[in-house]
Amino acid sequence: MRKGDTIVFDKPPCVLSYAAVGGKKESEGPLSEAFDMLITDTRCGEKTWEKAESDFVRCCLETALKKARLEPGALNAVFAGDLQCQCTASAYTMRGFDVPYLGLYGACSTMAEGMGLASCMVAGGHMRHAAAMSSSHFCAAERQFRTPLDYGGKRTPTAQWTVTGAGTAILAQEGEGPYVRAATFGRVRDYDITDINNMGAAMAPAACETIVRYFSDTGEDPAHFDAIYTGDLGMVGSTLLLQLLEQAGLKLNNHKDCGLIVYDRESQNVQAGGSGAGCSAAVLCCHVLPALREGRMSRVLFLSTGALMSQTTFLQGESIPGIAHLIELSSGLTRPGVKGGAA
Amino acid sequence: MRKGDTIVFDKPPCVLSYAAVGGKKESEGPLSEAFDMLITDTRCGEKTWEKAESDFVRCCLETALKKARLEPGALNAVFAGDLQCQCTASAYTMRGFDVPYLGLYGACSTMAEGMGLASCMVAGGHMRHAAAMSSSHFCAAERQFRTPLDYGGKRTPTAQWTVTGAGTAILAQEGEGPYVRAATFGRVRDYDITDINNMGAAMAPAACETIVRYFSDTGEDPAHFDAIYTGDLGMVGSTLLLQLLEQAGLKLNNHKDCGLIVYDRESQNVQAGGSGAGCSAAVLCCHVLPALREGRMSRVLFLSTGALMSQTTFLQGESIPGIAHLIELSSGLTRPGVKGGAA
Repeated sequence: MRKGDTIVFDKPPCVLSYAAVGGKKESEGPLSEAFDMLITDTRCGEKTWEKAESDFVRCCLETALKKARLEPGALNAVFAGDLQCQCTASAYTMRGFDVPYLGLYGACSTMAEGMGLASCMVAGGHMRHAAAMSSSHFCAAERQFRTPLDYGGKRTPTAQWTVTGAGTAILAQEGEGPYVRAATFGRVRDYDITDINNMGAAMAPAACETIVRYFSDTGEDPAHFDAIYTGDLGMVGSTLLLQLLEQAGLKLNNHKDCGLIVYDRESQNVQAGGSGAGCSAAVLCCHVLPALREGRMSRVLFLSTGALMSQTTFLQGESIPGIAHLIELSSGLTRPGVKGGAA
Repeated sequence: MRKGDTIVFDKPPCVLSYAAVGGKKESEGPLSEAFDMLITDTRCGEKTWEKAESDFVRCCLETALKKARLEPGALNAVFAGDLQCQCTASAYTMRGFDVPYLGLYGACSTMAEGMGLASCMVAGGHMRHAAAMSSSHFCAAERQFRTPLDYGGKRTPTAQWTVTGAGTAILAQEGEGPYVRAATFGRVRDYDITDINNMGAAMAPAACETIVRYFSDTGEDPAHFDAIYTGDLGMVGSTLLLQLLEQAGLKLNNHKDCGLIVYDRESQNVQAGGSGAGCSAAVLCCHVLPALREGRMSRVLFLSTGALMSQTTFLQGESIPGIAHLIELSSGLTRPGVKGGAA
């Protein structure tokens, strides 16, 4: 059923399993214990960071399959994307899995985009099992979008630290939950930010637009959710988001940002927080979904937020468009609007 | 209904409208008359080729909307992607349309990926109208994937000419056709091709795998189709495809390649033929879909084929993975397996 832009699933797909893989910095952060796997060798024994990222992704998909007790052949599709030019971390990983592959590009919004699309395919009866997956790698991203690491550039206070990690979730038509109850696909918003070291500001307007639209479409009350997660706005973007939402008449007391959960800003020297396509993907899979399954939360909104520029458009002086996709998750299948109560 | 990897639509979505925009070289080719719009200024009056590509895409989407007599707001989503790093041609275009945007990356396979996904969303009842769109630009692609044009590199005989153009199709739950009857999403295939000037060879195995799977899934007979189109295999890849298919026990007499239709290889100096994400997108929208609507063909398979490398993986000595997505199109809604007969 559609309500405005929001797709509300009559038969909500179940998140059958999920897995998250993190790197060295993630192993030193607050979620250290939550990751399924931590690989502290940033190169994973490979010659390049790009290949290492593919290894992270492969381990992540393998772990999610194992936890679901599924063979790769049981997947009808993997929806995946990453930040490398031409999404090669995902594509090169999929050489090793004989499974239909649907490549996405939503920058850091990819995980919610994949979760939303995979949910629609499963809910629509087109697929039995579909995976959503995304990843990023600090070293590969820095040299691609900003400067080579060897350059040793000073990081600005608005800069964010790209998560080295991956997250994978497998959706199925049935199961014990958590469930994807609804999805709102986002629209591009561009507030004319041109600072490639201030992604949070570039993405906040898109997050605001998607959140406002979800609540306007559904008539829901933000207070009925345990938390409203954004992907990787960091401190700067989160502050802006709350200001923009208040201007739009929406006051949130339960906003959390994956970029502020994955690292300890006090001790980890990550400036405004974490970022990267792997940030929201990993935090979803090692923090949000487990809390829903284990009953520590019953209902959340989860957004991934993406900045859609490239190094080319940046050098050409273009501004940075943002986008944010949203999914509504619940632990059980009680009627929406009522908080709590596993199925 | 699923048959193996193939999604067969119980209620096939209708292609409500379609539009194709081409550039200078396309205006000199055999399909010149078929394009909705020809823009012979490669820069479209812009300062960069990248911005010009966004203009092509914008014109294409505007034209498709006009032909469908729809306002942009009637679209529930645009599925789009292109070859520029981080898919900026599509994302920057979508700044100008206040419509949910789902970014795809399938390299030159993007159009069939978008058509398949948009069809599933419409057939599953999640969307009323959804657009699929893709584009490419010769100058932007050459400097990104190979060498800057100013370098004046000699082109090899296996090289292909990236189409400067775009194609957009709008899908709806109902209408007079043509219809998308089925979709088969492809798997990554890598035959260890490392020559960035031989995309056709890198993509042919993936095309073979998807075609063989479609026929094995459905039990259909290739002779029941007016044509089986591939995206941009060119002369080298097409020859290889037919050999691979014959080895797999499938003999096609009706194979056509969009890369061999869009240019005249005799007179246009395009080496092995056309390529690029805009190649199959434009040929679908100015050649295949019109022939189905006007009754000159009644049933076709349409594949877009993608090579999933980047300039980074190429410089790192990696091989080139290929992928191919397939849709089945028909002019009417008579029962599948029987050729001919508009609804």
